[in-house]
Amino acid sequence: MNKTVIEYVLSRLNEIGIDDVFGVAGDYAFPIEDAVCESHTMRWIGNCNELNAAYAADGYARIKGVAALSTTFGVGELSALNGIAGSYAEYLPIFHLVGMPASGVQRNHRLVHHTLGNGDFDVFYQMSQHLSCAHAILTPENCIAETERLITTALHERRPVYLGFPSDYATMPVVTDRNIETISMHKSNGESLSAAITAILEKLSASSQACIIPGMLSHRLGLTDDVQAIIDKIGLPYATMFMDKAILSESNPSYMGIYNGKLMNPEVREFVESCDCVMGIGAVLTDFNSGGFTASILAENRINILADHVKVGSAVYPQVYMQDVLSQLKALAPSLNHQGIKARSLGIPIQGEQGKITAGYLYPRLEKMFQKHDIIVAETGTASMGLGFALLPEYAQFHNQTLWGSIGWATPAAFGAAIAAPDKRVILVTGEGSHQLTAQEISQFQRFGLKPIIFVLNNDGYLIERLLCKDPEAYYNDLPQWNYAQLPTALGCQDWYCQRVTTCIDLDSVIKTTESTGQAAYIEIVMDRYASSELAQKLGKSVGSLYSF
Amino acid sequence: MNKTVIEYVLSRLNEIGIDDVFGVAGDYAFPIEDAVCESHTMRWIGNCNELNAAYAADGYARIKGVAALSTTFGVGELSALNGIAGSYAEYLPIFHLVGMPASGVQRNHRLVHHTLGNGDFDVFYQMSQHLSCAHAILTPENCIAETERLITTALHERRPVYLGFPSDYATMPVVTDRNIETISMHKSNGESLSAAITAILEKLSASSQACIIPGMLSHRLGLTDDVQAIIDKIGLPYATMFMDKAILSESNPSYMGIYNGKLMNPEVREFVESCDCVMGIGAVLTDFNSGGFTASILAENRINILADHVKVGSAVYPQVYMQDVLSQLKALAPSLNHQGIKARSLGIPIQGEQGKITAGYLYPRLEKMFQKHDIIVAETGTASMGLGFALLPEYAQFHNQTLWGSIGWATPAAFGAAIAAPDKRVILVTGEGSHQLTAQEISQFQRFGLKPIIFVLNNDGYLIERLLCKDPEAYYNDLPQWNYAQLPTALGCQDWYCQRVTTCIDLDSVIKTTESTGQAAYIEIVMDRYASSELAQKLGKSVGSLYSF
Repeated sequence: MNKTVIEYVLSRLNEIGIDDVFGVAGDYAFPIEDAVCESHTMRWIGNCNELNAAYAADGYARIKGVAALSTTFGVGELSALNGIAGSYAEYLPIFHLVGMPASGVQRNHRLVHHTLGNGDFDVFYQMSQHLSCAHAILTPENCIAETERLITTALHERRPVYLGFPSDYATMPVVTDRNIETISMHKSNGESLSAAITAILEKLSASSQACIIPGMLSHRLGLTDDVQAIIDKIGLPYATMFMDKAILSESNPSYMGIYNGKLMNPEVREFVESCDCVMGIGAVLTDFNSGGFTASILAENRINILADHVKVGSAVYPQVYMQDVLSQLKALAPSLNHQGIKARSLGIPIQGEQGKITAGYLYPRLEKMFQKHDIIVAETGTASMGLGFALLPEYAQFHNQTLWGSIGWATPAAFGAAIAAPDKRVILVTGEGSHQLTAQEISQFQRFGLKPIIFVLNNDGYLIERLLCKDPEAYYNDLPQWNYAQLPTALGCQDWYCQRVTTCIDLDSVIKTTESTGQAAYIEIVMDRYASSELAQKLGKSVGSLYSF
Repeated sequence: MNKTVIEYVLSRLNEIGIDDVFGVAGDYAFPIEDAVCESHTMRWIGNCNELNAAYAADGYARIKGVAALSTTFGVGELSALNGIAGSYAEYLPIFHLVGMPASGVQRNHRLVHHTLGNGDFDVFYQMSQHLSCAHAILTPENCIAETERLITTALHERRPVYLGFPSDYATMPVVTDRNIETISMHKSNGESLSAAITAILEKLSASSQACIIPGMLSHRLGLTDDVQAIIDKIGLPYATMFMDKAILSESNPSYMGIYNGKLMNPEVREFVESCDCVMGIGAVLTDFNSGGFTASILAENRINILADHVKVGSAVYPQVYMQDVLSQLKALAPSLNHQGIKARSLGIPIQGEQGKITAGYLYPRLEKMFQKHDIIVAETGTASMGLGFALLPEYAQFHNQTLWGSIGWATPAAFGAAIAAPDKRVILVTGEGSHQLTAQEISQFQRFGLKPIIFVLNNDGYLIERLLCKDPEAYYNDLPQWNYAQLPTALGCQDWYCQRVTTCIDLDSVIKTTESTGQAAYIEIVMDRYASSELAQKLGKSVGSLYSF
């Protein structure tokens, strides 16, 4: 017998590398959940709530390239939207499988639970269309064709897609007697591509000092090996921006450090802005990528290779796809052997007065503990702003939601990353304010036998907001005071190494113990109310530029 | 000087009874948060996350009639959508104040954080329009007129409205030199109203046995006193449906109990369905209101007074508003003095084998503890299905999200209710699966000095789903095992009375202690995996009817 609709979709998702489906069980989605649990190749990962599930799927997709999320109609899918929006903004293809009431319930506009009570079964689908690059309500008849279309689009555009499953259709056999049109991926326009390559090569060859800024899009499109090959062939130094950190190795001698406009690393800025050719490959000048819009590279000196077009100086070459551009550059790029500057580490951790844990101790100390292959997940806020400037070992990954910047993302995203890479060391660094949004998700690490290392920086409030707002002591920046070190036990995490530290000596010792035992660890790091990373402080002093237009 | 835009809006909201603004601080919303904190009349209630904030606002509005929620652009507002949708479905006017980037940032399509990176600043506003009865982006020029329009619409339709505040506009003085058009509330059509009243009176007078089903809409419109007056004047017995529980007193001798179709209370069903006139006042026949569509009242016997129209038999009287109908009925309704049946309590708590806590013990025991003026918040699932049939004392309130049914709602909603009514006893009853979605919010009770009584029913999984799905033991119904009784302490709730009970004797004793100490209490009640309320069991056996079309 043919596969059912849901079986068919799951088998295709499994074929493209999805082994796990994140979600929260709900009655309209029973057919999806049943099919996942009954499959022999996929696993149901139940999260504490749907937003956490969406964040976890996002984290998983950052490691494996794709992810799936299942929610129930209305209540479930809406809760996940903020997570989906983040995946949309940051180019992560999430397959959002939504269980819907049966087709007849919808047709008859029944007044059933999880609806607005107005007989409208289309409204949530409409809302989700704003946050997906393709979408479909699946039926036995359209299942095969629509599944191919959605997979092709998601993989090409690297953005979420929405699949609605009326519960009766989900368990019907797919209809296979239709001709499926082959989906053609977008192809570069030959003329435009050739002109773009010529312009890039001319600009590179004419340059006296060039550098490369590899960006997040090249990573999402799976092209970082090509970028590295081009860098090696031409012989150019490279810097990355914040959102793009560590997509290429930071231990490569050509790596110069993080370029963050006027705010940080003046020597990197000076070098990059003095180049007469700066080639971005999938990098985007957002606010936090550009040091609050203080980055300044002359337009005439820029090359920008983006997902579907190229800019050289003021000329735009449309309909030119990154993989085609990189493929030609690998073959044709000249050897220039330009030298750059050497990336600097954060140096030696320096204890604060009376042994207090300052930013000057914390981030260098964390930098020292990072190892090859670590997956570091850094929450939005002063924590990631401190960690972003640590120099990472080869193959270490750094994940941060720099553009979307939804606080709370990091805790479930770290869980999703750990599910995707159970053999790697996952290190989560989060502020306590952000952690409070989604903290219950740490109970899932335990349930799935994962052993993360979690650092919760407790500075008594939303620190980054204190730095950015009018009155730092305004009480909206205050938080309920939790006993963080007791939280894992309350949430059922047995045999975790849980500690609260207030001094550098204790932090050092706790990190050493963590490294030696291999247990899951949850460390509350108590810092002064205004102990913040350098970038956070500087942003606080440049709000004019950050919020300017 | 004139008030600023945000000051003006807040002052108007304060005038209609909103004293507190729920939310999570975020940078684009600083002007809103600053204005709340600087006002002398309103209070900022920071929640752990935005969905929890929306649920808390929903709970607050159930007590005070209106509520306000503030979130930041994109990340914050999207997280709140599921909560807003619930308020929309269940007729609660929530003023959703969203802080947006400055107008120039929007106009110039800057690539700033909390956007999709595509320069589109309109997309989230568009999405929210599906879940609001009115919406506006405020400017100094439109502020006064739009605020009036939104308030009028929200109060009239009892549904959420959306107010976007570009951060620069928010702090500009309002422009007052325009004529504000008076907003006219909808008025009944005189002819239609008169025909409707005649038809209602004829049907009532011709009946040999009539009863009333007062519904949630009459409560939301603030008309329950009118409904009670009409009941008293005519002399009719009344039953309520699930969603409408306790909107009129359950200790009134005319009260007959919960009408739930064929599933529960056969004597109530028999009586109601044998009446030749059943007058609904703001009641809606949704799935869970109708015993999974097993309720069966002949169309020819029905009168239904809804928010904006009346049905008598098969005749519809449009453009007739409930308050006008009730106002005339109060004056004109005949005295009939029909007798009904007497509502039954759950009776004596009966211990399970070996003293185990069964549904037959739990719900009658809780019923015994309920007092006048208690606010009972019951989570979706087997917990509310058990509690729904408890007979409540006068002035006790029962809140449940019956139509929208988003699990996780109850914990923050109970917090919102407690903020709205700090002098009342708030009792939260939730299953542990639902609780896990939003559990961190209990830390807010402590922070605001509130002393709830919280019961967490732990039956090792999503019980209602086990009863409704194909394979009750499917692993998607499993949960991480938390140590619930340790949770409040970990979340900073000092001096709470936290207990875990597994036997009836212990439960009884713990309830007595709770009542005598007046401390905040958090009680984990461990029950067997399938120990479920009668309605939950019956729904499990009637999935055919529940999901039918």
